Amino acid sequence: MPVIRMTLIEGYDDETRRTLATRLTDAVRATIAAPLDGITVAIEEVKPTSYMRGRVSRTPGPPLPGATDLVRDFLRAMQARDLDAARDCLADGFRMTFPGGAVFTTLEELVAWGAQRYRFVTKTYQGFDECFGETGMVVYCFGTLSGEWPDGTAFSGIRFIDRFTTDGGKLTEQRVWNDLAESRATPS
Amino acid sequence: MPVIRMTLIEGYDDETRRTLATRLTDAVRATIAAPLDGITVAIEEVKPTSYMRGRVSRTPGPPLPGATDLVRDFLRAMQARDLDAARDCLADGFRMTFPGGAVFTTLEELVAWGAQRYRFVTKTYQGFDECFGETGMVVYCFGTLSGEWPDGTAFSGIRFIDRFTTDGGKLTEQRVWNDLAESRATPS
Amino acid sequence: MPVIRMTLIEGYDDETRRTLATRLTDAVRATIAAPLDGITVAIEEVKPTSYMRGRVSRTPGPPLPGATDLVRDFLRAMQARDLDAARDCLADGFRMTFPGGAVFTTLEELVAWGAQRYRFVTKTYQGFDECFGETGMVVYCFGTLSGEWPDGTAFSGIRFIDRFTTDGGKLTEQRVWNDLAESRATPS
Amino acid sequence: MPVIRMTLIEGYDDETRRTLATRLTDAVRATIAAPLDGITVAIEEVKPTSYMRGRVSRTPGPPLPGATDLVRDFLRAMQARDLDAARDCLADGFRMTFPGGAVFTTLEELVAWGAQRYRFVTKTYQGFDECFGETGMVVYCFGTLSGEWPDGTAFSGIRFIDRFTTDGGKLTEQRVWNDLAESRATPS
Amino acid sequence: MPVIRMTLIEGYDDETRRTLATRLTDAVRATIAAPLDGITVAIEEVKPTSYMRGRVSRTPGPPLPGATDLVRDFLRAMQARDLDAARDCLADGFRMTFPGGAVFTTLEELVAWGAQRYRFVTKTYQGFDECFGETGMVVYCFGTLSGEWPDGTAFSGIRFIDRFTTDGGKLTEQRVWNDLAESRATPS
Amino acid sequence: MPVIRMTLIEGYDDETRRTLATRLTDAVRATIAAPLDGITVAIEEVKPTSYMRGRVSRTPGPPLPGATDLVRDFLRAMQARDLDAARDCLADGFRMTFPGGAVFTTLEELVAWGAQRYRFVTKTYQGFDECFGETGMVVYCFGTLSGEWPDGTAFSGIRFIDRFTTDGGKLTEQRVWNDLAESRATPS
Repeated sequence: MPVIRMTLIEGYDDETRRTLATRLTDAVRATIAAPLDGITVAIEEVKPTSYMRGRVSRTPGPPLPGATDLVRDFLRAMQARDLDAARDCLADGFRMTFPGGAVFTTLEELVAWGAQRYRFVTKTYQGFDECFGETGMVVYCFGTLSGEWPDGTAFSGIRFIDRFTTDGGKLTEQRVWNDLAESRATPS
Repeated sequence: MPVIRMTLIEGYDDETRRTLATRLTDAVRATIAAPLDGITVAIEEVKPTSYMRGRVSRTPGPPLPGATDLVRDFLRAMQARDLDAARDCLADGFRMTFPGGAVFTTLEELVAWGAQRYRFVTKTYQGFDECFGETGMVVYCFGTLSGEWPDGTAFSGIRFIDRFTTDGGKLTEQRVWNDLAESRATPS
Repeated sequence: MPVIRMTLIEGYDDETRRTLATRLTDAVRATIAAPLDGITVAIEEVKPTSYMRGRVSRTPGPPLPGATDLVRDFLRAMQARDLDAARDCLADGFRMTFPGGAVFTTLEELVAWGAQRYRFVTKTYQGFDECFGETGMVVYCFGTLSGEWPDGTAFSGIRFIDRFTTDGGKLTEQRVWNDLAESRATPS
Repeated sequence: MPVIRMTLIEGYDDETRRTLATRLTDAVRATIAAPLDGITVAIEEVKPTSYMRGRVSRTPGPPLPGATDLVRDFLRAMQARDLDAARDCLADGFRMTFPGGAVFTTLEELVAWGAQRYRFVTKTYQGFDECFGETGMVVYCFGTLSGEWPDGTAFSGIRFIDRFTTDGGKLTEQRVWNDLAESRATPS
Repeated sequence: MPVIRMTLIEGYDDETRRTLATRLTDAVRATIAAPLDGITVAIEEVKPTSYMRGRVSRTPGPPLPGATDLVRDFLRAMQARDLDAARDCLADGFRMTFPGGAVFTTLEELVAWGAQRYRFVTKTYQGFDECFGETGMVVYCFGTLSGEWPDGTAFSGIRFIDRFTTDGGKLTEQRVWNDLAESRATPS
Repeated sequence: MPVIRMTLIEGYDDETRRTLATRLTDAVRATIAAPLDGITVAIEEVKPTSYMRGRVSRTPGPPLPGATDLVRDFLRAMQARDLDAARDCLADGFRMTFPGGAVFTTLEELVAWGAQRYRFVTKTYQGFDECFGETGMVVYCFGTLSGEWPDGTAFSGIRFIDRFTTDGGKLTEQRVWNDLAESRATPS
């Protein structure tokens, strides 16, 4: 049932307004059992000179880059071993935690560590989830890994999940869980 | 900057309105780089007889049970091996996928499978994330496991993450990843 | 699609607010081809001291008596030949026009005229229509007449329509059309 | 006193918005005794991409053709015996009821029946009323008839009223009452 | 023409809301030539738990004491030579400027200075003006002085004006202009 | 905390909307102790054909000339002894009251009177205050006078204050207080 109206300073593009309306809808659906067809969102735009907070006109904050897009870009660059492109996605202080609790702060460390575990690895995505909480956006990505073990044997269908946190359009943390050890352990 | 006003049929409790306001705020913050202090939410309540959609007065949809609370209840019951209480949290067709791709549809199957892997296991939570998307609420829960291996040796600090999907106040799916195999493999 | 919000000074009863919401809905449906389920009306109430027009607080205007109810009351009283009750429904200057262009300004004139045309007459209603225009409310009432001719022969199923105008809860005019002459003419 | 704000998807022409505002005003005046000068209507327009119901952007429903204009067109065509133009105004299943309870479903039947009652007939309009209710728009039209009886004698000033129902820009029903029989009966 | 709606956290008394509505009206009238009857203000109240700015619920700021009342209290106390009561009206750093540019920071200094100019003095008020600007409220008070010169001669009708600045319910500055010197000079 | 939304007919320039927003902010700050950063104003503009009061579309009232600008223009013209330009600023019935209670209704009278008191006089402004009340705008202007006494002696730093009332872009009254007599009296 709820009707949501949002007053925005004019200037956001269609895509950003549509995303806002979608997320406002989802925020309601997460909280009350309203019939989907009854949730209405309307975004009213005002001129910058028609808006004032604290007696000061305001400039609209820019749309944020999509957090899922950022994660996809990073994973694509890593898979292509384009470390420069991957590094561009990272905030200062970026930190990775991999299975077994291995922690890295540079991509080079990760690459070196991975080299002992597989010749190469490719991710097939089953889904992405975005959570927005008090401390920014979290992106989950899960699916399966395929590639080759160090001895050249192929593997595939190995479950994985990554959890990324983002801030200001950069990745601040990556946590990885997967079944590589489970798989390595089983066949032997 | 945005100002969000939501018209609700009166009757929701303080907690539900606060949750709505918080999530509407987060929906904006996930999308545009607005300064936090500039995001205002006001919920205006109208009498049921003051609201009509399609020429019909409407009853407000009830607040949804907190999805994270549901997950906590389930995990607590499982840890206490109170399978009846745990089963109360599950939707028909509930399905679990565990490391190595093991799939179960009853709690008994899971318990039997786990008995081969550890004597008991306890979860310490580091965080919960809630994602609300088109197909309902997803809850992530991550932290560390401690317990005893089948041979009675203690373990602790082993990373895990669970992904739950919910629908109408019941769990519909659980997916689990953890470092148990990694840990079993390493020490040897 | 439209969302209509009306700000009212608090104090109107449920029935009045429901009628307002219904009529606002109908006003939209009369004008644009919006899907019924997409027309939302919410009435927001404010305290009398929270409302000011022209720097002056205002008292809410009282709900108007239902014009159709007024017409029903008048017709019921006329049928029961309770002229006092019927007269209570009339504004000063009330005027009736009957088939053949007969004009009356008092109920007694009408009764005398009718006595030459039928022994008694009863109305069966098929429908009422209310129109609200610039000059107040118009009520239409149509259906069939049954009764007895002056010679005692029964008649029934004779079509009629009445058009009433109202002002301030009183009837200001009645215009009547019916098939009585048609029926009298035919059988002979 | 009431203030009405309507949120519309942008794109309606001036005339449609003016009609909406007028009808919303009338809907209030029909219901509460508010001073006319105190009824304020403002229509706020939003971009299509700024509107979402049920998580879906919507296209504004087109303005409906004026129901009174439709009736005028039909009556003009009938008077000019332009049956093709008149037929264009009719919905499938259109049905007419004339004095004495004569029912027709084609214009040809009506024309044949009328030929026995008058040589020709012309309508002079005194007023039109539009009612919008749950089942669509109703248009009333009343005034006087003039023309010639079958014997060539002229008549004029004979009262009539028509009730039309409309749906989707077509007429679905016409009901006619008039004093022709009364007039024919009287002079003899 | 403008319609102003203000969303307030509920809890302000009638007087405060009326004052808000009046001042919002005046703010419009000071800026555009809108007909007074066309300026509408409605204050919508929401529950504290229905309001959030920056993801935080807020407590409504208390109504400010009337600045004119504060000035009246101060002037009444001064006239009654109740210096304690007068001092209660003053902010730290209060400063007075009197005709001829005499500056005082304590009431005692003022009293001593005045004693050389008149035996006593009484103010008759013609008007008060309140200005609210960026740096708080300013109150003007003007009218006439009557009293006795040091030699016991009576005077009256001598024009004066005082300008007070206020902050947080205390007076921060007083500036005084009057015709006492003009009057003393003239009679001689 | 309050959020203020104003619905305006479109067409006001940026400056006028900014002034409106500023004054609405100040009106709130004068009344309740809201934190400045929490006062939000948004001006929503609608098309003239989207606005109706009393069933009539309205033309937006023009922005009013700044009252302070009007006062500055008048004082500048007086100082330059451009009486024609000064007179353009005055409403019919304009009236001035000067120290000692001298009243003038024409600028010529004032000039003649002043000639006896000083050879010329120049104003240095310390501040302007605008008050908007029920009877229109009041402007205060205060600062110091410098110039020459009739005997050619220079003076400066003499305190003054003027109070102007305005109506429809013209000055209706001026009241003047200053320390000229005080200064003349002192040196002797």
